[in-house]
Amino acid sequence: MSVKSAKDGAGAPLVKNAAGRLVPAVINGEAAIPFKGVAGHVPTGRKAAPPVRHCGAFPLDGNKVVADVKTALRNAGLRDGMTIGTHHHLRNGDFVGNMVLQAAAELGVKDIRWMPSAAFPVHAPVVDLLEAGVVRWIEGSMNGPLGDYCTLGKMKGMAVLRSHGGRWQAIQDGEVHIDLAVIAAPTADPFGNATGDRGPSACGLLGFALADSMYADHVIVVTDNLVPFPCVPWQIQGNNVDQVVVVDRIGDPAKIVSGTTQLTKSPDRLLIAELTARFCDEAGIVRDGFSFQAGAGGTALSFAIFLRDIMRERKIKARFVRGGSTQYLVQMLEEGLTDYILDGQTFDLEGVRSMRENPGHVNTSPFTSYNWHGKGNFASLLDATVLGATEVDLDFNANVVTHSDGRLLHGIGGWQNCLFGKCTILPIPSFRDRIPVLVDRVTTLCGPGELIDVVVTERGIAINPRRRDLCDKLRGSSLPIRPLAEIKAEVEELCGGRPEPPDTTEKVVAAVKWVDGTVIDGVRQLKAIKGGALGGGGD
Amino acid sequence: MSVKSAKDGAGAPLVKNAAGRLVPAVINGEAAIPFKGVAGHVPTGRKAAPPVRHCGAFPLDGNKVVADVKTALRNAGLRDGMTIGTHHHLRNGDFVGNMVLQAAAELGVKDIRWMPSAAFPVHAPVVDLLEAGVVRWIEGSMNGPLGDYCTLGKMKGMAVLRSHGGRWQAIQDGEVHIDLAVIAAPTADPFGNATGDRGPSACGLLGFALADSMYADHVIVVTDNLVPFPCVPWQIQGNNVDQVVVVDRIGDPAKIVSGTTQLTKSPDRLLIAELTARFCDEAGIVRDGFSFQAGAGGTALSFAIFLRDIMRERKIKARFVRGGSTQYLVQMLEEGLTDYILDGQTFDLEGVRSMRENPGHVNTSPFTSYNWHGKGNFASLLDATVLGATEVDLDFNANVVTHSDGRLLHGIGGWQNCLFGKCTILPIPSFRDRIPVLVDRVTTLCGPGELIDVVVTERGIAINPRRRDLCDKLRGSSLPIRPLAEIKAEVEELCGGRPEPPDTTEKVVAAVKWVDGTVIDGVRQLKAIKGGALGGGGD
Repeated sequence: MSVKSAKDGAGAPLVKNAAGRLVPAVINGEAAIPFKGVAGHVPTGRKAAPPVRHCGAFPLDGNKVVADVKTALRNAGLRDGMTIGTHHHLRNGDFVGNMVLQAAAELGVKDIRWMPSAAFPVHAPVVDLLEAGVVRWIEGSMNGPLGDYCTLGKMKGMAVLRSHGGRWQAIQDGEVHIDLAVIAAPTADPFGNATGDRGPSACGLLGFALADSMYADHVIVVTDNLVPFPCVPWQIQGNNVDQVVVVDRIGDPAKIVSGTTQLTKSPDRLLIAELTARFCDEAGIVRDGFSFQAGAGGTALSFAIFLRDIMRERKIKARFVRGGSTQYLVQMLEEGLTDYILDGQTFDLEGVRSMRENPGHVNTSPFTSYNWHGKGNFASLLDATVLGATEVDLDFNANVVTHSDGRLLHGIGGWQNCLFGKCTILPIPSFRDRIPVLVDRVTTLCGPGELIDVVVTERGIAINPRRRDLCDKLRGSSLPIRPLAEIKAEVEELCGGRPEPPDTTEKVVAAVKWVDGTVIDGVRQLKAIKGGALGGGGD
Repeated sequence: MSVKSAKDGAGAPLVKNAAGRLVPAVINGEAAIPFKGVAGHVPTGRKAAPPVRHCGAFPLDGNKVVADVKTALRNAGLRDGMTIGTHHHLRNGDFVGNMVLQAAAELGVKDIRWMPSAAFPVHAPVVDLLEAGVVRWIEGSMNGPLGDYCTLGKMKGMAVLRSHGGRWQAIQDGEVHIDLAVIAAPTADPFGNATGDRGPSACGLLGFALADSMYADHVIVVTDNLVPFPCVPWQIQGNNVDQVVVVDRIGDPAKIVSGTTQLTKSPDRLLIAELTARFCDEAGIVRDGFSFQAGAGGTALSFAIFLRDIMRERKIKARFVRGGSTQYLVQMLEEGLTDYILDGQTFDLEGVRSMRENPGHVNTSPFTSYNWHGKGNFASLLDATVLGATEVDLDFNANVVTHSDGRLLHGIGGWQNCLFGKCTILPIPSFRDRIPVLVDRVTTLCGPGELIDVVVTERGIAINPRRRDLCDKLRGSSLPIRPLAEIKAEVEELCGGRPEPPDTTEKVVAAVKWVDGTVIDGVRQLKAIKGGALGGGGD
């Protein structure tokens, strides 16, 4: 690994990692470990150790309610340079992230590191707080205006993008110390027990906030639905909570979960979904007791529907399916097509209802499902994992955070973690807006090709040659199995050539972490933003 | 606090603590903190930090099953002087504790510190392992032969007795480092997810093993009921588990939980139970939304029945009740007399069934309920807490581990933790086997009198004068409210005087910890064991 003498805009030296990418060796003043290969980094050391507290310092009647967010932040001793953790279960309906950072601004606090599990367009007001120096940088997925702000190199610190499992790993390992966690809770009791599966702002589960509640020095629960002790279930345990704040509304229900989730209507996407389901079937994956994970995007949902039809016809029952849960997975559970939904986040009202009512609809967390620094996790147990991507190159490397135009538009979500499934399939269109998705070299490397087994496009299915077993199994199939290079050439001809390279500087504006905390790539500063949003990765 | 120059048998100096008791300043070679008053000790420092692991070191298919217990111990690197943690949910039906220590013996390992959450008569074979030097000492409640062995001063190390909350605190704070946790699991999957609420050896919950699973360096799950992944619910998370062992039987179901729990038939005990219920009523405790905790002993159960009758008659509904759950609490839940059972351990088959089926029957752990070194715990939220005792003195100090004969017969259980309830009531007979229970000075101090509010005997009810509010409230009551000294004098007359002092040496054979890890008292070596077992404390 060679240290490049050139400095990036932030002055950090770049080093070449095991994937051949130039990545920052120092991130926001702290040394970073370059990617060493998919499982090349062996951690040492011990987990983060939060301070020991004692009941004598808390009200014995269990009532931890304080007047308002600002009082809570003051009680917590919030000061310059601290790290605040929040979660994104309220998605684009979240009021709490802005509320907390605004209160920090009013208290005159500066240089906050904000570590949301993801930020959304609703958090656009944080741009002003970045400008004002209240927030110094963001570590977490950024969509919308914050993504653009970051891509243009305007953030004082370097952004850090992590998978859901990577966020758990970073907090658990003490790589990121959260001083103050603020948890938006759809229902809570005065002791701080909290749940997401009920209340006017119900969002399902609160798994993304779990690490924060366990490892932060100080934990504040903010709710708009206070119930008498005990709040059952206690997805967040009050024994980890310091203070509770009651507000009028923690979010906009209409933007937290969908009323219903939509299947794709695009004929191309439907074809891709159908090919994916048929591939799973012909590969021998769809059998009694199998498992799969599919997201809540239109194509993934349609894949689940095609799969369901196969299962019904063949009377095949899955042992478990993983979501993002939706009405479609819930129907499968209720119809007896699966024993369990192991749910990572809930996307529609039916998902929330099912989680609340059905013991077969089980909450998970990034610890159970995704944390690479655990004694195993659930992701590698999946028989089939269906994921999106913004770009895939000829070595099956994939990108999920930027597009070919270099714009940071998506979070990693559970995407990197899911790559460890037994058969990882990317059902993607071969081009978007006349720009090829199949490329020579992905703009940002998020997932190494050795973990990606199959790419399904509307023009054919490419099996990773490393998966000789799958190639053999599908030999003679009626499915359109084709080399990836062949599909790529066809698309380039159709689109009039390869994508234009993005007009970037050398400066890294966002480090992309691998599941083990090493740096797999960096997002480069873009000189200008062109065009609109495109579909893609997870949240 | 004065250091006494006299050494105890193990050579440790004794110091006088804030309760005026002479306690060891050093326990098994490590400095101990003398009791500083009920909430006098303010902890500093950080929680224990287990080593960071990574998925690359575990089978990606999630199958952690190994051949047998001995193989698992060898894989775990068990060696001389290590600490092994086990739990007591299988009570006197447990096979796993003996299995593990026997396997350690066969591997030639010496000087083990065994830290069960409690030991039972079924663990009598451990006496031989103590004699052979395989086990050096035990930290955990001891009943039966192990209690006698300890009382007679035969154990090489000093025993340490802790409450359930104190055990969590000690492990969480790193006061006791568990090298190897072995968890007897009535149902588990190959990944190590485990539950106690189903399977041929079902015991209800596994909360006493939770700290071990989180903080031990290495965790082994032993089950006799392996199910395909996922084992739902996962009371123990497979992500904390290193290995899984499948054995023929983990225990004897007939001795794990009772078929049914029995109410007392003794007229005296029934009277005590009734007086306790009437006291709660007249004190204004029994009102809509109230809460109580009662154990599974005959008197406590009968108290719950009397209370139930009052609630039915008055159409009063509790918000929650805490158990040890039994068929009687389950009936109350199913009848709608309480919203929730918050269950700490399950005592009969109906309790196990209800926990499995009823979302209102909620699992708790020593973390949620009892840990003093948390941000509050559930115990102090209880409106009434009904507990046993082996002795009570005129200052309302109580003993729960020894009797007046000095014999170590009972564990502390959740007893100390429960003393923090809003009204702590000890319904106890005024004498047992013609030996007064009301004494001048308790043989072993387990609970400071300032936390004990009421003593109910068959000869009258004594209210702690510190609780002026209760004295005022009950003034003019038809209940037999009497000074404790008066009841004591009456009993002494009846029994022919005070209890004989036990014939002990100065040597401390077991340190009794307070909920915060300080030493509240020590059990003295008894020169000889006389007589049989008596009723008493918690497990």
